Amino acid sequence: MEKVLAMLPTISWKDEAVILIDQRKLPQKEEYLRLKSVEQVARAIETMIIRGAPAIGLAAAYGLALAVRQQKTEQNLDRSFEKAYERLWRTRPTARNLFWALERMKTVFQKHRRQGLRALKDIMLAEARKMDEEDLAINMKIGEHGQRLISRGDTVLTHCNAGALATAGYGTALGVIRAAVAHGKKIKVLADETRPLLQGARLTCWELRRERIPTTLITDNMAGYLMKKGEVSLVIVGADRIALNGDTANKIGTYSVAILAREHHVPFYVAAPLSTFDFSLQTGEDIPIEERQPDEVRRIGGKLITLPDLPVRNPAFDVTPGRFISGIITERGVLRPPFSRAIKKFAR
Amino acid sequence: MEKVLAMLPTISWKDEAVILIDQRKLPQKEEYLRLKSVEQVARAIETMIIRGAPAIGLAAAYGLALAVRQQKTEQNLDRSFEKAYERLWRTRPTARNLFWALERMKTVFQKHRRQGLRALKDIMLAEARKMDEEDLAINMKIGEHGQRLISRGDTVLTHCNAGALATAGYGTALGVIRAAVAHGKKIKVLADETRPLLQGARLTCWELRRERIPTTLITDNMAGYLMKKGEVSLVIVGADRIALNGDTANKIGTYSVAILAREHHVPFYVAAPLSTFDFSLQTGEDIPIEERQPDEVRRIGGKLITLPDLPVRNPAFDVTPGRFISGIITERGVLRPPFSRAIKKFAR
Repeated sequence: MEKVLAMLPTISWKDEAVILIDQRKLPQKEEYLRLKSVEQVARAIETMIIRGAPAIGLAAAYGLALAVRQQKTEQNLDRSFEKAYERLWRTRPTARNLFWALERMKTVFQKHRRQGLRALKDIMLAEARKMDEEDLAINMKIGEHGQRLISRGDTVLTHCNAGALATAGYGTALGVIRAAVAHGKKIKVLADETRPLLQGARLTCWELRRERIPTTLITDNMAGYLMKKGEVSLVIVGADRIALNGDTANKIGTYSVAILAREHHVPFYVAAPLSTFDFSLQTGEDIPIEERQPDEVRRIGGKLITLPDLPVRNPAFDVTPGRFISGIITERGVLRPPFSRAIKKFAR
Repeated sequence: MEKVLAMLPTISWKDEAVILIDQRKLPQKEEYLRLKSVEQVARAIETMIIRGAPAIGLAAAYGLALAVRQQKTEQNLDRSFEKAYERLWRTRPTARNLFWALERMKTVFQKHRRQGLRALKDIMLAEARKMDEEDLAINMKIGEHGQRLISRGDTVLTHCNAGALATAGYGTALGVIRAAVAHGKKIKVLADETRPLLQGARLTCWELRRERIPTTLITDNMAGYLMKKGEVSLVIVGADRIALNGDTANKIGTYSVAILAREHHVPFYVAAPLSTFDFSLQTGEDIPIEERQPDEVRRIGGKLITLPDLPVRNPAFDVTPGRFISGIITERGVLRPPFSRAIKKFAR
């Protein structure tokens, strides 16, 4: 694990700043950014310099630690905190982990508020770091539970990047793959490129390749063809938000992969920590789906692929009904459908 | 029609050369190429300077006319013709229209062989031109039959480009859309971008936009989401080869769209001329699927989107089972499933 941490520092804290690898530029460039203000952290989330539900949560947590540590005096501390909280809250609407992390940091802030600014500076940073470490441990557990679903010789299809870069490290869906490999299972990975922002082609392939896990890239429209040919053993994806009935919001295209998997009798698994579950939602219908700016579709790597003013749709996520999901892999084990009862237990 | 012809000259003959618009460069550049040898025509088909099953057939027909017209003497005429025929035959394996066109030209060559080279030069060019004109007329008929399936207010999803650029003009799937618009039906089009080569984003959007048909571009992985939201009324695609039972080879991703359409009770239509039918194949299982070079997936517009040596899959086509198809729109009318009997009638 130390090695993974050292190799893929998705997010870290150093010298009063949040350090991020710029995920927009991978795999061509490995550039690290030093974020020295809440506004910079918020913009990094909005522009997807950092992305992936658990990683966004951690960025927000470090962002709130930053807000408190930059405070010079007690005066206006509450207002500053609230302002930072609101700013980070508004960055992206779909991933539950963002709000979960903000709420957790706020609870800690309020609990220790009376100890004063100096104490809070340490407490808030310690909490963000704790969440970071916890997330890594959680991913290891998810990996351990999930790897039992993978057999030697399997080909695992994944969509987008639910890897080390989407979390504190190790990853959720890719954590399961890493754990299977760690158990000596010889497996192959098929990575959907994941338009528009190509997280599969850019991030998943890069992550897996550096660990020499055999990975083949496909365009998003090839998955059905390969399933029909019997070349996909199972699908594992991450999640941005999971409702009480198991309905799962994840990167656009996940829903289509789930339908294709069902059509071809290929098991379809979701891997996610408890912080992804939204216990206030009965179903996925009320999960807000972010619609991002049109140039993400019209351009690839800055280069125009169509007419400059062409209307486009750009929903960043879709919702896969719980009934299409063979299992949800969490740090507490693999949930099996129907999910409602098991998920309600987590809520307590 | 004159206007369409003038606007989109997919392929034409001028001054002893085949003139093509370079489809790799659209919509950013409108460049015309003058092909003066069979080898140049063959390479234009292989590199997809011209693509689309009917258009490939026409390119091959003009290519054979070129071969005969470049012949200086009777000597070696048969060998030259055979060589050109073999070269063009080997360009791409999936589209039936290529082989159909080559066979038709060969039949004409053989029928008139005894009239000598001078006569053949005119006869072969006249035949290629006739096929060109016929294809346009066929598309108009396909459009007329197919437009009855479209109602005012419909949103039609299409995949790849089965438009004027894929045919002599007007198009098959896009011909149906054009005919519906010509009948005064207010409709909208959703165009799948169609990775890897983006024929939807580059060609379909360009074609429809210049006729002011409201067109919205989506990535290939968004179709399922939009169908679930009820935003797709019907799907119309073209075809590269159709077997006796209606199994249809078409651009990679078509199969997935068909499964998504069935899941959401969205009618799924194929539009294609009789020259696309392969009466020698009982089912689509024996249709050869071209696997193209990996850099088409690894790069977009020349720009690397992943690691330079990453393994990829790049099947250019997939096969949609006839049972997933609501109707096949031909110049003789709309076939309804089960297709076998109707298609066998065409074979006669």
